[in-house]
Amino acid sequence: MPLSGDRVVANHRDCDTLIIMEACTYTLTFKVAGAQDLKVPMVSGESIWEGAKKANLAIDAPCSGNGTCGKCRVKLLSGTVDSKETRHIAPEEYRDGYRLACSSTIRSDTTVFVPSSALAYQNRMKVTDLRTSREQGVFTAFQGELRDMGFWGDQGLMVVRVQLQAPALEDPMADRERLLRAAAEQIGTGASIRFSLHALRKLPQVLRSADFSCTGVLRQEVDQTYTFLDLFPGNEQEPASPVLVGLAIDIGTTSVSILLVNLQTGEALAVGSAGNGQIRYGADVISRIIESTRPGGLERLHKAVTDACIEPLISQVCHTAGFPPERIYRVAVAANTTMTHLFLGVPPEHLRLEPYVPAFFDTGTLRGADLGLGVHPDAEVEIAPGIGSYVGGDITAGAFSSLLFKKESLSLLIDLGTNGELVFGNGEFLMACACSAGPAFEGGDISCGMRATDGAIEACSIDENTLEPVLKIIGPPGQKPLGLCGSGLIDTIGELFRCGIINAKGRIVQEGNRACRDEWGIGSYTLVYADRSESGRDIVLTETDLDNFIRAKGAIFSAIRTMLTMLDFTMDAIETVYVSGGIGSGINVQNAIRIGMFPKLPLEQYHYIGNSSLSGAYGMLTSRKAAEKVLEIGRGMTYLELSSHPSYMDEFVAACFIPHTDGTLFNLDA
Amino acid sequence: MPLSGDRVVANHRDCDTLIIMEACTYTLTFKVAGAQDLKVPMVSGESIWEGAKKANLAIDAPCSGNGTCGKCRVKLLSGTVDSKETRHIAPEEYRDGYRLACSSTIRSDTTVFVPSSALAYQNRMKVTDLRTSREQGVFTAFQGELRDMGFWGDQGLMVVRVQLQAPALEDPMADRERLLRAAAEQIGTGASIRFSLHALRKLPQVLRSADFSCTGVLRQEVDQTYTFLDLFPGNEQEPASPVLVGLAIDIGTTSVSILLVNLQTGEALAVGSAGNGQIRYGADVISRIIESTRPGGLERLHKAVTDACIEPLISQVCHTAGFPPERIYRVAVAANTTMTHLFLGVPPEHLRLEPYVPAFFDTGTLRGADLGLGVHPDAEVEIAPGIGSYVGGDITAGAFSSLLFKKESLSLLIDLGTNGELVFGNGEFLMACACSAGPAFEGGDISCGMRATDGAIEACSIDENTLEPVLKIIGPPGQKPLGLCGSGLIDTIGELFRCGIINAKGRIVQEGNRACRDEWGIGSYTLVYADRSESGRDIVLTETDLDNFIRAKGAIFSAIRTMLTMLDFTMDAIETVYVSGGIGSGINVQNAIRIGMFPKLPLEQYHYIGNSSLSGAYGMLTSRKAAEKVLEIGRGMTYLELSSHPSYMDEFVAACFIPHTDGTLFNLDA
Repeated sequence: MPLSGDRVVANHRDCDTLIIMEACTYTLTFKVAGAQDLKVPMVSGESIWEGAKKANLAIDAPCSGNGTCGKCRVKLLSGTVDSKETRHIAPEEYRDGYRLACSSTIRSDTTVFVPSSALAYQNRMKVTDLRTSREQGVFTAFQGELRDMGFWGDQGLMVVRVQLQAPALEDPMADRERLLRAAAEQIGTGASIRFSLHALRKLPQVLRSADFSCTGVLRQEVDQTYTFLDLFPGNEQEPASPVLVGLAIDIGTTSVSILLVNLQTGEALAVGSAGNGQIRYGADVISRIIESTRPGGLERLHKAVTDACIEPLISQVCHTAGFPPERIYRVAVAANTTMTHLFLGVPPEHLRLEPYVPAFFDTGTLRGADLGLGVHPDAEVEIAPGIGSYVGGDITAGAFSSLLFKKESLSLLIDLGTNGELVFGNGEFLMACACSAGPAFEGGDISCGMRATDGAIEACSIDENTLEPVLKIIGPPGQKPLGLCGSGLIDTIGELFRCGIINAKGRIVQEGNRACRDEWGIGSYTLVYADRSESGRDIVLTETDLDNFIRAKGAIFSAIRTMLTMLDFTMDAIETVYVSGGIGSGINVQNAIRIGMFPKLPLEQYHYIGNSSLSGAYGMLTSRKAAEKVLEIGRGMTYLELSSHPSYMDEFVAACFIPHTDGTLFNLDA
Repeated sequence: MPLSGDRVVANHRDCDTLIIMEACTYTLTFKVAGAQDLKVPMVSGESIWEGAKKANLAIDAPCSGNGTCGKCRVKLLSGTVDSKETRHIAPEEYRDGYRLACSSTIRSDTTVFVPSSALAYQNRMKVTDLRTSREQGVFTAFQGELRDMGFWGDQGLMVVRVQLQAPALEDPMADRERLLRAAAEQIGTGASIRFSLHALRKLPQVLRSADFSCTGVLRQEVDQTYTFLDLFPGNEQEPASPVLVGLAIDIGTTSVSILLVNLQTGEALAVGSAGNGQIRYGADVISRIIESTRPGGLERLHKAVTDACIEPLISQVCHTAGFPPERIYRVAVAANTTMTHLFLGVPPEHLRLEPYVPAFFDTGTLRGADLGLGVHPDAEVEIAPGIGSYVGGDITAGAFSSLLFKKESLSLLIDLGTNGELVFGNGEFLMACACSAGPAFEGGDISCGMRATDGAIEACSIDENTLEPVLKIIGPPGQKPLGLCGSGLIDTIGELFRCGIINAKGRIVQEGNRACRDEWGIGSYTLVYADRSESGRDIVLTETDLDNFIRAKGAIFSAIRTMLTMLDFTMDAIETVYVSGGIGSGINVQNAIRIGMFPKLPLEQYHYIGNSSLSGAYGMLTSRKAAEKVLEIGRGMTYLELSSHPSYMDEFVAACFIPHTDGTLFNLDA
């Protein structure tokens, strides 16, 4: 029943046509597990996906609502909708009410159920308290290396404890001047000390809640002046010792990760990750840049990653660690060039227009208030510098954290993201290039793909005889599988190929293959029966998924080949390979080599180093000298533009097989 | 008719009482001349004044809604209200529907008319384009004096014009780095140049809209680095020469004034003033401090002066002068100690608790983003320093702009505000004190008082024979009088006394006095029949008004006497008197002496210097050295606490006569 029905009759006297337009308004209700129902007004003909955007409900649609990714499956509970036919919904599922939100338009008041699988790719936020987690070890080890290199103890923050004389009628000096006098006695009487407004606002209460004793957090500025950032009551060492908190941020095209750090000890306190809120505007940077040029687009994309994604993540990690966000006194950010522009609200449009020029490589040190994220307004903010339109701060930060810049031997850094990025070199030279892998490594473009969060299959082995898969699933014991993350995909496809279930072209071998089920007629391999109750579907891999994944791995391998060829090196010149990216807690290198994604090198030469961009930001966070070093790395790095290289397309086509058209590269017969 | 009626029945089983509570909700409609009707939901028993606060309609109530000031008169058009009896509404007016908003509670759906007189005191914003006004002259003259003293040309802002090489595939340097290279060639190749995020966001578009030529606004920092604040397309001198805009702010307890300045020429572009939005929380600083300690109070008071008052003023003066607020690159603020605390959101509560200690004297230079007022986020913000709880930055700024600090002769600065403040001294010493005059000089505590804006009677003379008043009214020709501002009050009371209409005790001489009308039985002098159609009342002065004014003038005179006595000076030691304050465009000193407000000195020794606090802020705005000098003045100034001085109360009581109990002070017979 329409909430209102405006019937507009336009009677054109001069012609014999009577036009009747009806603009009906309906209510669309979203039911979401574990959350309140959401209701939005809809005009006849709008899609359920458009309704979700109105409701600020981030239903996954990495294909931007084109009906091609199949991630926006919802279940119709009541109402009438017009739905396009799609290979993503089987006839039996259609009868059960399943629809693609983007391809279904409203014709009445409608209620739909949104399964968590439709929110998994983009939305799911994961926060881990690292003080009780083994993941802490990654950062402890890296911190040790930083200390050895002298990148430690120079973030400028310090703690000062003072006991003041209480004011009296005959000594009515103001609080600030009273405190500065006492602080100068400790720091050095000639010191020029400023006061942040944030600290000034707390000052009267802090002083009077502990008999005019207090503990201050100060920063020594690069010009040797000091700034009072924060204040706490009391001046005892224990237990009040205020933790100096810092935040490292990695902004990927698909995923965002943040790390809360104790800047005094280097201890990583909590880590959080979520899908980049910009995904609703397209899976790749080009779609986002185009969206940013539309009216209000830059603001939308900026807020989609700041307000809708990073700010809630900060709030969650701070809650987990027990500090309010304004206790974050220093921030370091690493991201690709487009993401850095959008994060800072700088128009990125010229990145995709010849001659492909960023608005900036470096930004200089910014301030917390610039970001509007609720961190301390006077926090120093370091942004990892980029070197070109497609090699950004994530790569300069990664080249730092992988320590490529100081090695004698030749190393290769492979960063698996929506853009695959490579750095090759050593202490004498560094060359970088980027290739468009697409979002497959982070679960995009794959029917049942998802980011490496709870419910993701992160490893898989298949029994050659029974063809039964054995899965490793991220999450607490008993966690049901919801989809496949990057490392799970690599494993699964490697195993499918090893067991002869798929062939070198990525086609599913139908005949006599017990593992294959193809009731939809689209060629699909059923991995596991899971979760049908909620999402109504098995976890499957389709031939389209295989095609998408093979293109992604082909882009990586051909980029490596092209770069080494240009430098007149062969694959065996590479002494160490560092693999990074948010594709899972690890990667089965054997399977990655088996499918022709990585070069055939001894397994011990491979090291998975997690999120190298986040680690690089961690380094910049804990040391000003490290931030300076990242800047220096960026200035010295050579950028190789693959697309302008004549042999790259041939290399790419040859790499779009399993493992490769040239089997000799993988020690196979030609 | 109630919109909803919730009937709550609480039946206490253990006692024999049945409690019935009815919470009825009504709609209160405000009709305001020249504006849209405002509707708010009301609960039975709430006052019309509370409804006005909900509607964000700032009906005047300097008495904080206690029913004593009589300014919140509205006219009931429909509905039932319970109204307390009040001397401010005559029986005849009551029959016509007039009510005090604060003393009338709602009993039904109600509609009231709000006459502009009920909004005049607090609300009326006045903005003047100084480029076409004679007021410009005040600042031109002062600017000349500043130049002569060397307080000029050192605010650090500069303009750089460059032509860049356009980027190309073989020269893909980023925009920022390209511009910095060119700017460094002009400034000096070793210069360290930072980039504000504000400028970075504009950079790509600016460069491409004028063939990679641009004009930049830079600031040379005190540490000799540079910051790019802003950018404009093109590099021609004319007509693009960007105006470097600055803003001076004076925040008084009752009134706020702001001045937009061209920092290159010193030209004052536009001036604006409005009532301090905090008036709704009480007329004096003590009420405001108390309100600030209530839950959410500090935030309310902070926003009442920033968001509700200064931000709209900025928006108006910027609109008048034709610049967006983010073009304001430098800001200077002068205010009393409480106002400075509330403006910055710093808790002021200890200002009124022994030992009366401010949170700060000085703040150091702040940043635009700290203020949240829409000015350039990297603007330098100078705050005039205070020296005590009741002598604030308005006085140090005033001591600067009156040039007391450099005179050989002994001078007295009298700043007439809600707090009267005095500075006495010369180039060798300066002593300051404050007295609580109350808001009478700015129109508060006076039935028909108003600020010095359009409609205010600013001068008055009375014909001794006819007793007819001749009025001078602020505003365009034909402006009807709405009330009395400070200078008009001084004149009127001086004239009433001269003509024998009032006596030395401030009582209206009834017998045979044709000018007196006292139909309300409260002792009132009718100044003029005006505006009855809208506010329904004559402009009158009551004996209560006279009492309030006499206390205000008595506070000033007794403070002068006490301070001079303490220093062993007599009145004739004063060689020059500077009178400042927003009491009108001038003050009739003869009348001020006649009523015993100012000491009996030759008229030529008096100089009205307008708003000395705003002028001081103007000086700080146009010169960093001037801001430094104000700081130095503050450090060297001695603060005299009058309340602790034994003779002050006796002096005050003696001064609460016209002119004084000791007539010899005014050359009268004892």
